[in-house]
Amino acid sequence: MITGKNYVGSKLKAAGEKTFKTFNPQLDIENPWVFTEATQEEIEEAVTLANQAFGTYKNCSGLEKANFLNAIADEVLALGDNLLVQYCSESGFPIGRAEGERGRMVGQLRSFAQMLTEGSWVQAAIDTAITDRVPAPKEDLRKMMVPLGPVVVFGSSNFPFAFSTAGGDTASALAAGCPVIVKSHSMHVGTGEMVATAIIKAAQKTNMPEGVFSNLVGGGTTLGASLVQHPLVKAVGFTGSIRAGRALFDLAAQRPEPIPVFAEMGSVNPVVFLPKALALNSQKWATAYAGSITMGAGQFCTNPGLLIGVKGAELNNFSEELTKAIEKVEPFCMLHPSMKNSFEEGAATMISQNGVSKIAEYKGEAPANYGVQKILTVEGKTFLENKTLSHEVFGPVSILVQCDNEEQLVKILNQLDGQLTGTIIGEPNELKEYNKLIAAMQNRVGRLIFNGVPTGVEVCPSMIHGGPYPASSDSRFTAVGIHAVNRWVRPFSYQNWPNELLPPELQNENPLQILRTLNNIQTKSQI
Amino acid sequence: MITGKNYVGSKLKAAGEKTFKTFNPQLDIENPWVFTEATQEEIEEAVTLANQAFGTYKNCSGLEKANFLNAIADEVLALGDNLLVQYCSESGFPIGRAEGERGRMVGQLRSFAQMLTEGSWVQAAIDTAITDRVPAPKEDLRKMMVPLGPVVVFGSSNFPFAFSTAGGDTASALAAGCPVIVKSHSMHVGTGEMVATAIIKAAQKTNMPEGVFSNLVGGGTTLGASLVQHPLVKAVGFTGSIRAGRALFDLAAQRPEPIPVFAEMGSVNPVVFLPKALALNSQKWATAYAGSITMGAGQFCTNPGLLIGVKGAELNNFSEELTKAIEKVEPFCMLHPSMKNSFEEGAATMISQNGVSKIAEYKGEAPANYGVQKILTVEGKTFLENKTLSHEVFGPVSILVQCDNEEQLVKILNQLDGQLTGTIIGEPNELKEYNKLIAAMQNRVGRLIFNGVPTGVEVCPSMIHGGPYPASSDSRFTAVGIHAVNRWVRPFSYQNWPNELLPPELQNENPLQILRTLNNIQTKSQI
Repeated sequence: MITGKNYVGSKLKAAGEKTFKTFNPQLDIENPWVFTEATQEEIEEAVTLANQAFGTYKNCSGLEKANFLNAIADEVLALGDNLLVQYCSESGFPIGRAEGERGRMVGQLRSFAQMLTEGSWVQAAIDTAITDRVPAPKEDLRKMMVPLGPVVVFGSSNFPFAFSTAGGDTASALAAGCPVIVKSHSMHVGTGEMVATAIIKAAQKTNMPEGVFSNLVGGGTTLGASLVQHPLVKAVGFTGSIRAGRALFDLAAQRPEPIPVFAEMGSVNPVVFLPKALALNSQKWATAYAGSITMGAGQFCTNPGLLIGVKGAELNNFSEELTKAIEKVEPFCMLHPSMKNSFEEGAATMISQNGVSKIAEYKGEAPANYGVQKILTVEGKTFLENKTLSHEVFGPVSILVQCDNEEQLVKILNQLDGQLTGTIIGEPNELKEYNKLIAAMQNRVGRLIFNGVPTGVEVCPSMIHGGPYPASSDSRFTAVGIHAVNRWVRPFSYQNWPNELLPPELQNENPLQILRTLNNIQTKSQI
Repeated sequence: MITGKNYVGSKLKAAGEKTFKTFNPQLDIENPWVFTEATQEEIEEAVTLANQAFGTYKNCSGLEKANFLNAIADEVLALGDNLLVQYCSESGFPIGRAEGERGRMVGQLRSFAQMLTEGSWVQAAIDTAITDRVPAPKEDLRKMMVPLGPVVVFGSSNFPFAFSTAGGDTASALAAGCPVIVKSHSMHVGTGEMVATAIIKAAQKTNMPEGVFSNLVGGGTTLGASLVQHPLVKAVGFTGSIRAGRALFDLAAQRPEPIPVFAEMGSVNPVVFLPKALALNSQKWATAYAGSITMGAGQFCTNPGLLIGVKGAELNNFSEELTKAIEKVEPFCMLHPSMKNSFEEGAATMISQNGVSKIAEYKGEAPANYGVQKILTVEGKTFLENKTLSHEVFGPVSILVQCDNEEQLVKILNQLDGQLTGTIIGEPNELKEYNKLIAAMQNRVGRLIFNGVPTGVEVCPSMIHGGPYPASSDSRFTAVGIHAVNRWVRPFSYQNWPNELLPPELQNENPLQILRTLNNIQTKSQI
């Protein structure tokens, strides 16, 4: 049952007067549930509770936190198909996507639980005392990662499960030992409430402190701004547009005590097609990219919005194959009429630019909120001169840039803003000829792909989901994989601290059997 | 020989018209050398060169970078006593300190060289492909740290060697693979120039690209601001005051592309004295702290400016012992008349606050620029009500806060800004009674010390030199120890990239024999 209320800690509250509803884009109707925006008092209470919870939660053992995360996964699964139906009704995504994304959310929670159970993630480093060192003795020093404090997580529009209420930001922050306050994404607050209920149940079942999690509802920007500016909030996780992400980054940087914001923002994910690959496999790559461009109505951070090649018979042929392939794909429903409008406006702006033409578009009839995919094209020279053409349009549209030569292509890459991904489609033996191109691409991206599509973000330790600004606000971190926890922790050093009062991770006996750096050697040994 | 010019890459340039001199505080006279401030053109050229150098320097092997860093250490040592004499003439520090700090600078360079030679610092993680995975195959993903780009390093006033031209920030940035542009600290630009000459020589001997290092001279804030705002600069390292550090942080955050600033700023390094320790060892701790407070004329980031205890016979006795001890210490020369003035003004402001009294001061005659040490005292209640009393005064002054009870003491700790260090002086068996106090301290500091003094920062992997704001601008990093390199790198992921084109750190054969996370297991194995 959806109450439409805020979870302020474990209490459902809705003292406010402002309300709103979500929208079912598939049915093109408003959903029935009424959601009440959090009041300033409720915001204040949630943050205060989070700060109180931090005092005990930060001292929970890895095993206790792992139990909590696994319990969240269990409780989410226990919601069964009802949760999937709710998700579909507030996103327009099909049930298969709902199920897949739930799997990813649950998988992320369990992978952080596994990381906590194993325990070495705290990066323990110990340098033992050298009492007879000359001229001065060396003190015993022991370091490990500790949590920052309460973290605010902004739910994303396009991942109601994997990057929202119990998504990667929440899972990594809870794993770090940070209480979390979620600002639920207004497009799917009902889904958010159901997931929040699962988290609250899990917290109670595993004896977590009251306030370790809150879920707040808001329609405009007030809730988010209040949270980011609150002195007791110590870090922020965000996935969304450059405009919104930068606004939060600026608010956080202007605080008396600035706090870190990890904002994963816009990306056009450039893809370079080399001639030999196109000569050999034009049709294969056209089919793969038609799929990648239209997948989820193009509503992925890693959607390939920018395709680049050098003019010639191969590129012409690829362009024709891509046209055929893209026209065949049935369009998908977009998340919300506002997303569909932004997409159409963005695409229209692109098309209206000098030198841009539309070469392909789905020709059939499409229901109300469906994103009708398009391929545009432009000359390299024109692209270089018009910054608008490198801006992200969120949805199923890509622009094929036809360069005069490799030099122009490298210039385009060098001029691009930071990107989550960059892809090179080529034959293995032709890659060596394109050193400059590869170097230029490496400099602009967080993940470099060979012969693949950028969509589909694997959750594993070697994945980077992030990149130079504005792909993310701080390229030194990732939003996906267990290292996402590093956004919410700081190193802390004990000097000459009594062994029995140290956290187990740093005790002589190494009771947790974790891997530590002991006098410069990586080992699980005792001291 | 001091030329007074800027190193724009390896070229000595001084096209500017603004000049200034340094000052010998021991002799209380201006030094003879004339330094010419960098022009906007010279700044532009240095940054452009650094950016060009980045293209090749980032691809240097660990061994090549290690050779460079070791060569810097060798060239610095080859300058012999002349360098030490120059250092003393521009800092007022004695020759012993010069020698010790040179040892630290050289040791830091060599420890980063060792880290590079060993190679595992890149945090390589590999998840191999699973081609038959259902529903979708898993792609091969391989991650490692890569450098951010040109880094600007601001020399500090108080560490002309260890945190300036070839100090920890420069060494860690060069180790990361980032070219460095130093803004030499104006108080010791001559020392800076000598060290810069050593770096330039080392770069040439080890075939580093032109522009891998530049050393610029400036008197006011223009040079620093121009560097931080330059679009090709990708990160900033700074050690100094909160005012200056925050100004740079703000400039960097307001750029179209914000960049990370690691600023190590102010700290009063609270020390709590527990009653049993004072009952047993009052004199010992008084002597130790009289030494720590006055060491280097109190001009250390980790100087203990705030001493706290609960009222009683033990604290009274300690206060008397500290008075005796502090009056015995001969004062030291400060870095510059302006530092001495700031110190005297800061101390006078503290003394002028309601309820503050001076309980101890060196009574003898002190030469012109010497910092005359003082101990002040105040009641806990008064301290809590007056924020001025918790501000850092850079120099040999500490305030002894006398609390009514432990609760008040904890309240004081909770109210403090972030700190580099916190110290607890106690008997091992009394520590357990003070859980709240320890928890409050942990929350505010980067390093927690038991029965010691905060001055004396060991350079080792388990050291943290950093802490919650404003001790540093980002508590997630350290300025000391090999992990300081993490400030200048970002994770980068290769997907499905051909083995022979991967960097050696990620190749199947593990040719560098580094420790990697291979399918979730830490190993040096091949694939």
